[in-house]
Amino acid sequence: MFLRSTASCLSFFVFSSLTLLSPLSYGDEGMWTLDNLPKNEIQNKYDVKIDKAWTDKIMLSSARLANGCSGSFISKTGLVMTNHHCVRDCIYRLSTPKEDFLKKGFHAKKRSEERQCPAFEVNRLVKIEDVTGAVKKELKGLSGEAYSKAKKSISARLEKSCGEDLEKYRCDLVDLYHGGEFHLYRYQRFQDVRMVFAPEQAIAHFGGDPDNFNFPRYAFDVSFLRVYEEGKPLDNLHYFKWSKTPSYKGEPSFITGHPGSTQRLLTLAQLEYLRDYQLPDIIAYLAEMRGYLYQFQKQSAEARRIAASKIGRVDNGLKALKGRAQSLRDKVFFSQIEKKEKTFRYQLTRNVWHKNKYGDPWKEIESAVEKAKERSSEINIVAFGGFESELFAMARHLVRLPEELKKANSQRLSEYTDSRLPQLKQMLFTETPIYNDIERLMIEFYLIKMRESLGPDHAFVKKVMGRMSTSVLAKKWIEGSYLKKASERKRLFEQGSEAIKSSKDPLIQLARLIDKDSRDLRLYFENNIESKLNKYSEVIAQAQFDIFGKNTYPDATFSLRLSYGKVQGYKESGQEIYPMTVTSGLYERATGSDPFELPQSWIRAEKKLNHKTHFNFVSTNDIIGGNSGSPVIDKNAEVMGIVFDGNIHSLGGAYAYDPNLNRAVSLDANIITEALDKVYGAKELLKEFLDKTQTGFRTF
Amino acid sequence: MFLRSTASCLSFFVFSSLTLLSPLSYGDEGMWTLDNLPKNEIQNKYDVKIDKAWTDKIMLSSARLANGCSGSFISKTGLVMTNHHCVRDCIYRLSTPKEDFLKKGFHAKKRSEERQCPAFEVNRLVKIEDVTGAVKKELKGLSGEAYSKAKKSISARLEKSCGEDLEKYRCDLVDLYHGGEFHLYRYQRFQDVRMVFAPEQAIAHFGGDPDNFNFPRYAFDVSFLRVYEEGKPLDNLHYFKWSKTPSYKGEPSFITGHPGSTQRLLTLAQLEYLRDYQLPDIIAYLAEMRGYLYQFQKQSAEARRIAASKIGRVDNGLKALKGRAQSLRDKVFFSQIEKKEKTFRYQLTRNVWHKNKYGDPWKEIESAVEKAKERSSEINIVAFGGFESELFAMARHLVRLPEELKKANSQRLSEYTDSRLPQLKQMLFTETPIYNDIERLMIEFYLIKMRESLGPDHAFVKKVMGRMSTSVLAKKWIEGSYLKKASERKRLFEQGSEAIKSSKDPLIQLARLIDKDSRDLRLYFENNIESKLNKYSEVIAQAQFDIFGKNTYPDATFSLRLSYGKVQGYKESGQEIYPMTVTSGLYERATGSDPFELPQSWIRAEKKLNHKTHFNFVSTNDIIGGNSGSPVIDKNAEVMGIVFDGNIHSLGGAYAYDPNLNRAVSLDANIITEALDKVYGAKELLKEFLDKTQTGFRTF
Repeated sequence: MFLRSTASCLSFFVFSSLTLLSPLSYGDEGMWTLDNLPKNEIQNKYDVKIDKAWTDKIMLSSARLANGCSGSFISKTGLVMTNHHCVRDCIYRLSTPKEDFLKKGFHAKKRSEERQCPAFEVNRLVKIEDVTGAVKKELKGLSGEAYSKAKKSISARLEKSCGEDLEKYRCDLVDLYHGGEFHLYRYQRFQDVRMVFAPEQAIAHFGGDPDNFNFPRYAFDVSFLRVYEEGKPLDNLHYFKWSKTPSYKGEPSFITGHPGSTQRLLTLAQLEYLRDYQLPDIIAYLAEMRGYLYQFQKQSAEARRIAASKIGRVDNGLKALKGRAQSLRDKVFFSQIEKKEKTFRYQLTRNVWHKNKYGDPWKEIESAVEKAKERSSEINIVAFGGFESELFAMARHLVRLPEELKKANSQRLSEYTDSRLPQLKQMLFTETPIYNDIERLMIEFYLIKMRESLGPDHAFVKKVMGRMSTSVLAKKWIEGSYLKKASERKRLFEQGSEAIKSSKDPLIQLARLIDKDSRDLRLYFENNIESKLNKYSEVIAQAQFDIFGKNTYPDATFSLRLSYGKVQGYKESGQEIYPMTVTSGLYERATGSDPFELPQSWIRAEKKLNHKTHFNFVSTNDIIGGNSGSPVIDKNAEVMGIVFDGNIHSLGGAYAYDPNLNRAVSLDANIITEALDKVYGAKELLKEFLDKTQTGFRTF
Repeated sequence: MFLRSTASCLSFFVFSSLTLLSPLSYGDEGMWTLDNLPKNEIQNKYDVKIDKAWTDKIMLSSARLANGCSGSFISKTGLVMTNHHCVRDCIYRLSTPKEDFLKKGFHAKKRSEERQCPAFEVNRLVKIEDVTGAVKKELKGLSGEAYSKAKKSISARLEKSCGEDLEKYRCDLVDLYHGGEFHLYRYQRFQDVRMVFAPEQAIAHFGGDPDNFNFPRYAFDVSFLRVYEEGKPLDNLHYFKWSKTPSYKGEPSFITGHPGSTQRLLTLAQLEYLRDYQLPDIIAYLAEMRGYLYQFQKQSAEARRIAASKIGRVDNGLKALKGRAQSLRDKVFFSQIEKKEKTFRYQLTRNVWHKNKYGDPWKEIESAVEKAKERSSEINIVAFGGFESELFAMARHLVRLPEELKKANSQRLSEYTDSRLPQLKQMLFTETPIYNDIERLMIEFYLIKMRESLGPDHAFVKKVMGRMSTSVLAKKWIEGSYLKKASERKRLFEQGSEAIKSSKDPLIQLARLIDKDSRDLRLYFENNIESKLNKYSEVIAQAQFDIFGKNTYPDATFSLRLSYGKVQGYKESGQEIYPMTVTSGLYERATGSDPFELPQSWIRAEKKLNHKTHFNFVSTNDIIGGNSGSPVIDKNAEVMGIVFDGNIHSLGGAYAYDPNLNRAVSLDANIITEALDKVYGAKELLKEFLDKTQTGFRTF
């Protein structure tokens, strides 16, 4: 399954950056902003005419899940459809040892049974403002620390300027074309989001890790949420209608959503660093973590339940990164990227005027990468390491908040600016189950890796570990901490810096102990590496933008995009893969053993279901993690499916789109409605989004 | 710690091979055969004159442990010194839940308390015969399957020709200079080997994984065995004397032993494949396995005990491979290798006569590597995969033995030739503890990785797994098998093929089920990849040998070698590292927490010990895994220490020797004698090898 977590795994590992894309896109390439769609190409290829009403409707009917997914509004009473794997954390948190909704599914038969997802946020984009001029003016001529500070300060100011009510709205400054344009995106912010329906994990993630990122496929990866406002279901004007016609091979398909992050413009120096250092290292790290978790979950049914969510993320992240590594080490794939960079670099340096204006940004980036390489372990651990612990993350926030809030908005670390506070506070002050066993497991793992990576003689290791063993430390920190209680976190926050300073909580003490080291090295990284990468990436982007303009699309930035394409198979090891699967295949693939074990509901329904109904399909749409939960819509902007994955070749899509192989994997709308009816008897839910009295797109 | 297991991890992964070495060695490079020592260089550099008596003595006093280590004979009554980590498996097997010798150490105060190591073999090289002419004659003009077969057949015949008594002698055909020379090595074979003394694992492996391959260091990694013949201690003429003088910085040091395998002559195509595919893949595989094992051992003290040996091997293998990967991805290191290959390749192809004679072997190797890449997962799993299970390995042997033994010696798979049978039978028919929990853990892990690697739709996966889950299968195979009993294994072997065919043992059935697939693919690999790699490697070697002769040393092949050098530090991150540590440092480093926790014996002895005694030291000797347990000897061929490791830079030594950084790490002879006396009160043992009435080297 796609999930933005794969990107966030790499949040530090992949520096934000830029570079070389030919101005022409091939195949159905591109994650386009709504103001700059290749309308002619779409009309020529797929005979679909796109106008402003269409794009407005799409914008307002699309949802973003702040946890890194996409979704769609599908009813006038606030129903939101997304993937099961996008709300797995919520399902997991609503579950208890006695009632495991991952196992048995969740179905609220009436509104009063809908359960609020802890610390969950849904956004709807309502306005885009171009602020390029203002931003560029303030950044002009700056570099290093000054550049870094100025950019942070502009972001903080503009994101706050959203105004009135930060509980109801959020603004994000969106950097497009790596500094080519800056837009201010204004979102409605919904923090009361309730679970309506989720199938059993066994069918949502049928085929488990072995089938993940593969096709043919049979996963019923869908869930339904409802957005509430002031305690009532959202009174909603904008939503997608459900398509009544079956999908077909060759059908044009559009995907609207929030692709998290692509690095199609990384320079060769950056890609080589990724390929040779970062990807292998993080793959080995996650592989080891997976071993711990797999073995941990065997202890008991309860261990299995509490580890499931983490395991899902690790499995998925690992496979996604392996897919990326596979693409990068493919010599043909890599040499195409190489060729593009070389061509553009040559074009740029051949021309004296260009050369004087832009210099050699590739060389600057290369030297920043070298700097990163020298201290990468330290930067990862000291500046950004979080002990793999949810509780430590909270402790760090509690330690830093009083200090940061004293500063002007623009001077703060980026995660503490006013526009970010509502989400942060929601996370901190919501009661959410945290399991000591998982926390201890992860901390112990982290300490071992930290010591391995920095060496037992490193000052930071000595400071953190003293003369204690990894298991004793993990136990002391977790069993001794009161931060599991939201009330305690709230108390500490409200009592502010004095309470923090005098706290005997071992995690607060740990966060304080290493705060200076962590901040210092983060500053070093931001001022000497990150800002340099950003700056020279932007120089390349600017050169490209000056020369090619907006004939291309910007890298994904977890902002709203549209991709176009059609339902189409591909060739794998010489074999043609048909783009659709049907229900009969599901029953053939079921072995009765995990992860190919069907839940009882599907076993019982076998005879009631039409075995020819389309189940999953692939299309040529160019998507990436963050697009999970995106609706697939047809010419009429009606829902024909929901994206939940890409094939293995789509993972290299982080760096380049391959039209022959890169495919999005979706769940077909037809099996959704059929299964809600025949497997789950969810007639009320069905009625709500199929209701003909609902006003859909056409009456907008 | 060095151990040959790191090489055997890669047994398939690293193709045996050849290439480009400049004929001059730099620094103290080289693992030299005793018949071709660079005597002049040694005399000039270290003022040591080497003659035949010296080399004869060294040969006869050196021991090889068939499990992949080295050792030294040190008394006239068969005492052999080696590393603790080389006999860890034996200690582990002698232990029980009630008596854990890894934890408390082992000390036989009299002969009758010495305990036989199960399935253990010590060899002593007694004769070397040059058979180059005969071998080359038979191989001439052959390629593909014919070449492969002929080589196997010659090996089998010559190794059997050792003659008389294969229980007492073994012969190995040793390929030097990758086909440049072939020697037949004749060893005495000792299969009754008993444990005399082993310290606690906590001090033998002090610093654990964090300190492994690092320096400064404080590991007391030594153990003593005794070789028996016909139930009595070996009446032994040849052994090393103990040095009475303390070692010093700059002291010349010689290391005699059996380095397992180097790949200093791999071509760039092979090294790139290693760097980009094999090393990252196997590192991720082992990292995941380590996660399982670490978590498994937390269950109980008994789990910790039974997993310890496997964990040690995995930790060590992982760190060793990471070290290799680190060297290969270092651009400077790699480019030096690149330059050497390019230069020689140019020299060779520039000359028409050479070109006609040798062709372009590099190109042939490249195409064989491409072939390997295409099917690497299948080859690893189907042809060579052993389910990570000791029991399955035995089942496979039992299934294959009746079939293989029907064939002529020369037609058999290489592991079933007559010369290999005694060791194989010893392994099969010796009672040895096998733990169901570990077996199941490893099988389950393996099945998950197999399915991940080949995909759930692969015919082999379906054949092995059917519709069962990984845990159900692992349970069925292991709990249902009777192969844990040596008597049952012996019965099956003796009753032969009918008993195998009718056996209901699930592991025998599994081995039979996949035998054809496995044999077929192995044959494909041997005939289409391995033989091609060998053949063209040998062409390059021949070219090199023709041009440079024996001015260089051959790759390591687990045959006896001598390396020379001196006690000397190195620079790490700009800091000078002193070549020796002393006892006081051990006590400073001890934190009281694993892996820096001292055993009680050393805590009690703290005041009795001289804190200035040399503990560990580094020297410039060029060694590699397999040298574990090698004696370090001085000018007079007296023991000044025992090798147990290399520093992290020595790991790249698999591919090239870096005189500035590559260091061997040894335990000093002085702390051995002092600790045996003051920590362990092992006066009898000390007396035996310090006894002045013993005849040492000088009286040979």
